[in-house]
Amino acid sequence: MEGGEETWQSEVQRQPHPYVPKDLNLAGFVPGFLSQSTILTVFGFSSLLVFSLVWFLSGRLPKLQKTDRLLMCWWLFTGLTHMILEGYFVFSPEFYKDKTACYLAEVWKEYSKGDSRYAARDSGVVAVEGITAVLEGPACLLAVYAIATRKSYSYILQVVISLGQLYGTAVYYITSYLEGDNFAASLYYYYVYFIIANASWVVIPTLIVIRCWKKICAAFQVQDKTKTKIR
Amino acid sequence: MEGGEETWQSEVQRQPHPYVPKDLNLAGFVPGFLSQSTILTVFGFSSLLVFSLVWFLSGRLPKLQKTDRLLMCWWLFTGLTHMILEGYFVFSPEFYKDKTACYLAEVWKEYSKGDSRYAARDSGVVAVEGITAVLEGPACLLAVYAIATRKSYSYILQVVISLGQLYGTAVYYITSYLEGDNFAASLYYYYVYFIIANASWVVIPTLIVIRCWKKICAAFQVQDKTKTKIR
Repeated sequence: MEGGEETWQSEVQRQPHPYVPKDLNLAGFVPGFLSQSTILTVFGFSSLLVFSLVWFLSGRLPKLQKTDRLLMCWWLFTGLTHMILEGYFVFSPEFYKDKTACYLAEVWKEYSKGDSRYAARDSGVVAVEGITAVLEGPACLLAVYAIATRKSYSYILQVVISLGQLYGTAVYYITSYLEGDNFAASLYYYYVYFIIANASWVVIPTLIVIRCWKKICAAFQVQDKTKTKIR
Repeated sequence: MEGGEETWQSEVQRQPHPYVPKDLNLAGFVPGFLSQSTILTVFGFSSLLVFSLVWFLSGRLPKLQKTDRLLMCWWLFTGLTHMILEGYFVFSPEFYKDKTACYLAEVWKEYSKGDSRYAARDSGVVAVEGITAVLEGPACLLAVYAIATRKSYSYILQVVISLGQLYGTAVYYITSYLEGDNFAASLYYYYVYFIIANASWVVIPTLIVIRCWKKICAAFQVQDKTKTKIR
């Protein structure tokens, strides 16, 4: 048995990885066990579950607009993504050696085809993911609570998190460009993983910042009018 | 004459640089011409001039608190620092070859003693400095105008810029830590340039975010009360 395991391990060590650049040294790399469709189906169904649950429960809360309920869905979805998926990446530098078909390791093995800096543990990527997982993740859950209970800090909190997401995505893309923009296994993975999969974290935070910015300005205009009336 | 120039150039090429790690390849490095005290004196006097000018001019504007006037000083100072000093760095990848004793090149030759990633053009540093110089710099000038004219977006704009500064500083320190935290020529330069010179961009943005956060919450509380009264 032991001899067999050794042979298997040495085969694993020789296993070339599917990432670009090809000369990236990933000693001990173990190929993914789950297919792309399995990974995406699990992610899609989990996300759908989170969205449905929040949509249903938020409908029982008083005085919430549909936009607020949708935002609660987004914040729980993005918060859990930050804490679970990205949190796993931040604290698992050797995910590419995983032999247990652990779903979270499989996600990053697959995503690294679009950006091998994840497997290579690029410091810019780890810094951004660290801030996202540790600070922004819990803040997203706070945003769900703040919207549900109509806190006065609800809009500024959403601006703060959304800006963090936008800044992180900017650093993510700019560092890739500066380092030669050659980390995707193919054009397919470049567009589907590197560009499209990240697009939500550009478009949605931008829309949220614009909406909250307007709400905050409106609140100050009301305050100024109230002060003028008092005078 | 030409022969003399060639000899001088080849001497320059052989000139070792004062940065750590020692094996950092900086072909064509030209040592700084200005002393640390000259560089700091010019920076100190320029900053003092900016502060005095804004303080004096803002005193002639109606209804501005002292805190607002101080903030206007800060925003012009930090905006000009972002646009001029950091802007020069972003668009001058070969500053360490400068032979003209240009002040801006001298600043970065000197600062690189505290963090050689500037001379080495680390992608994380360039990404953060790029966002800071190109987006945050002009936004700081807008903040000066917004405070002076009491715009309703004044507080949210200040939060947005301050958070950008805090996020940038976080990426700056975390990437350094992840890359081994060994980029300073000595402990003196580590503490004086890498830690102390950057400390203002941690402390002041944090204070501004706290202040603006409170002001924004207060505005929403006034708005909510006004709505309740109308009902």
